[in-house]
Amino acid sequence: MVQISKRGEAMPASPIRKLVPYAEAAKKKGRTVYHLNIGQPDIETPKQVRDAIHQSDFKILEYTHSAGLESYRIKLSQYYKSVGIDVNHNEIIITTGGSEAILFGFMACLDPGDEVIIPEPFYANYNGFAIAAGINVVPITSYITNGFALPPIEEFEKKITAKTKAIVICNPNNPTGYNYSENEMQELKEIILKHNLYLFADEAYREFTYEEKQHSAMHLKGVENNVVLMDTISKRYSACGARIGAFVTKNKQLIDATMKFAQMRLCSPYLEQLAGEAAIDLPPDYFNITKAEYKTRRDLIVKRLNAIEGVVCPNPGGAFYAMAKLPIDDSDKFCQWLLESFEYNNQTVMLAPATGFYGTQGLGKDEVRLAYVLNVGAINKAMDCLEQALKVYPGKTI
Amino acid sequence: MVQISKRGEAMPASPIRKLVPYAEAAKKKGRTVYHLNIGQPDIETPKQVRDAIHQSDFKILEYTHSAGLESYRIKLSQYYKSVGIDVNHNEIIITTGGSEAILFGFMACLDPGDEVIIPEPFYANYNGFAIAAGINVVPITSYITNGFALPPIEEFEKKITAKTKAIVICNPNNPTGYNYSENEMQELKEIILKHNLYLFADEAYREFTYEEKQHSAMHLKGVENNVVLMDTISKRYSACGARIGAFVTKNKQLIDATMKFAQMRLCSPYLEQLAGEAAIDLPPDYFNITKAEYKTRRDLIVKRLNAIEGVVCPNPGGAFYAMAKLPIDDSDKFCQWLLESFEYNNQTVMLAPATGFYGTQGLGKDEVRLAYVLNVGAINKAMDCLEQALKVYPGKTI
Repeated sequence: MVQISKRGEAMPASPIRKLVPYAEAAKKKGRTVYHLNIGQPDIETPKQVRDAIHQSDFKILEYTHSAGLESYRIKLSQYYKSVGIDVNHNEIIITTGGSEAILFGFMACLDPGDEVIIPEPFYANYNGFAIAAGINVVPITSYITNGFALPPIEEFEKKITAKTKAIVICNPNNPTGYNYSENEMQELKEIILKHNLYLFADEAYREFTYEEKQHSAMHLKGVENNVVLMDTISKRYSACGARIGAFVTKNKQLIDATMKFAQMRLCSPYLEQLAGEAAIDLPPDYFNITKAEYKTRRDLIVKRLNAIEGVVCPNPGGAFYAMAKLPIDDSDKFCQWLLESFEYNNQTVMLAPATGFYGTQGLGKDEVRLAYVLNVGAINKAMDCLEQALKVYPGKTI
Repeated sequence: MVQISKRGEAMPASPIRKLVPYAEAAKKKGRTVYHLNIGQPDIETPKQVRDAIHQSDFKILEYTHSAGLESYRIKLSQYYKSVGIDVNHNEIIITTGGSEAILFGFMACLDPGDEVIIPEPFYANYNGFAIAAGINVVPITSYITNGFALPPIEEFEKKITAKTKAIVICNPNNPTGYNYSENEMQELKEIILKHNLYLFADEAYREFTYEEKQHSAMHLKGVENNVVLMDTISKRYSACGARIGAFVTKNKQLIDATMKFAQMRLCSPYLEQLAGEAAIDLPPDYFNITKAEYKTRRDLIVKRLNAIEGVVCPNPGGAFYAMAKLPIDDSDKFCQWLLESFEYNNQTVMLAPATGFYGTQGLGKDEVRLAYVLNVGAINKAMDCLEQALKVYPGKTI
């Protein structure tokens, strides 16, 4: 009998998607399930973007340049300039989702056995990309007590070894919603310079910050060769299924190496590159409207959560996620129970157990991630469900 | 200064794409370049497929299931049944191009240091996927003298070690066009059974065989758990830029492991899945028309090549590639010279040097791959160029 590989065994199932069969079973029973488990917004993909697809007049769905359509990369560099990131189109490789940008970065910058340091909780799929690339994730814990701020820089110093090649940050953060301050970004700059590390910056949620502006790693001066921006249009334009991202760096040697990985898989999907290109021409108020909607949702969900006895939810400064501490024994059990054994007016809520976002075993057992990607009405109903559930959950701790 | 990884250095540049800058320079000089270097057909993507995109009425470009849209997988299983491959939709994972199916197979079935045996010359990007996965390609040479038939099975036996986990075949073959016989497929079945190996079958060109029918690895009886089909719609429907492929196996444990890699990158592009789904409903004569066109081109290019003094081109039974032996010193030099220093009536031809398709250093120096993806008029002009070029090339050997 043929066997699967050790890495195939080691690859974790997605903590965001692994409960899907329970959600499907609940729906088959006729229950409404509010999906706060996954960052799939209910906001429409902008009409201009959809029009670009519907009006595209191609005759052959051809390969594009492995780095992406040149016209798109030129427009994308204009978008980046508009957010203070000075790059030209040769410093951009269009990737198949932000996912591929992360995988390319891990592969082009690290060898098997090398290490990346990532503040935890972190986007769970970083684990998957690390296993695919044969590298090790070294987590440094951030805490709900200070809203998941950057851990003290001495904690990074303690973990840096000869194997450490990069620090990964997601800013604003998925899953915590934390928006790193200018001061924190400066601290990261100093440590990557001191130890000659890459800084991989996943800035998928750049536009969505609610009090303070976002500070891009690409704004840092004097570390241009160290910084790699891993970007995506998924959240920016509510186009998760497009699978269009970007690998951006001013490091010429790294762009050249990464291009060989890009050539390996030929190109990113053609039609969605047209969509991405059209999105650059959206009117300037597009993000204001979207951001105002997300802020309203955030304010509501944070208020509702903190009003529940025993629940703590810091106010996230960005992205569209909130991490909440719940009075429960085990977030995996609780989230499964919500789908399998609970209903309130024939409705329930799907959450992501936080355990999957921590690299350190045992953390996150009383935390969940909530994506406020649904409208205010749905969020209110979902919070009604959660409030009721916490009254009757057999594993409640208060 | 930060460094790129060793695997980033080891990753080969695409032999098909590395001459692109020379082609661009030739075009800037006003020259017409006939692209026989890359498998990008000039045949239109079927109108029904384009219509499916233009008429899609989505409001949100959403994530799909990580295995692909269920409706598409169900239709795709019907397509497979129509070509004698009995699989259900749970035995299919939609991938981002055939490329991703190959990468997933290498990662889910092999660990770093493990080996795959591949008859050479082979599709050059297998090298890239192998380096990305940290595995080693062990080539077994096939020869132009017998049209690149499967090497004797004893040659495989000699190369099998404890590290060998799989044999990869591309059938019909890229770059040779060879269509493996039923007998050769049986020989492969016996050796994978005997040594407990996977058989990875890249069948991107399934529909395009001109004398004998194609024999799918999925038709082999008694090795269902060993066979993985790596498929794509790129060539079948002239939709290379769609980036839609499939990983297909009846091995349940392997599907489960591969699903975790699929979840890691969330999903394949949404719009092109719609395109793939629409393609299943093309009328039965679609492939007949396309195939007749490719056959006409093949007959022409093979005739023209063999009419040139010192050129040998076996008649390829499938796909849309021909490998030719040329009276030249060095195919890399020659292909670059064609773009840089040659013109005939202000035209030239771009070919792929065969060196990039061999794993064994030094092979392929007098061979080139020609993709007959252009119409008959263009092929004739390209052959005029090649004929003239071989008269004046400074490195000619006759």
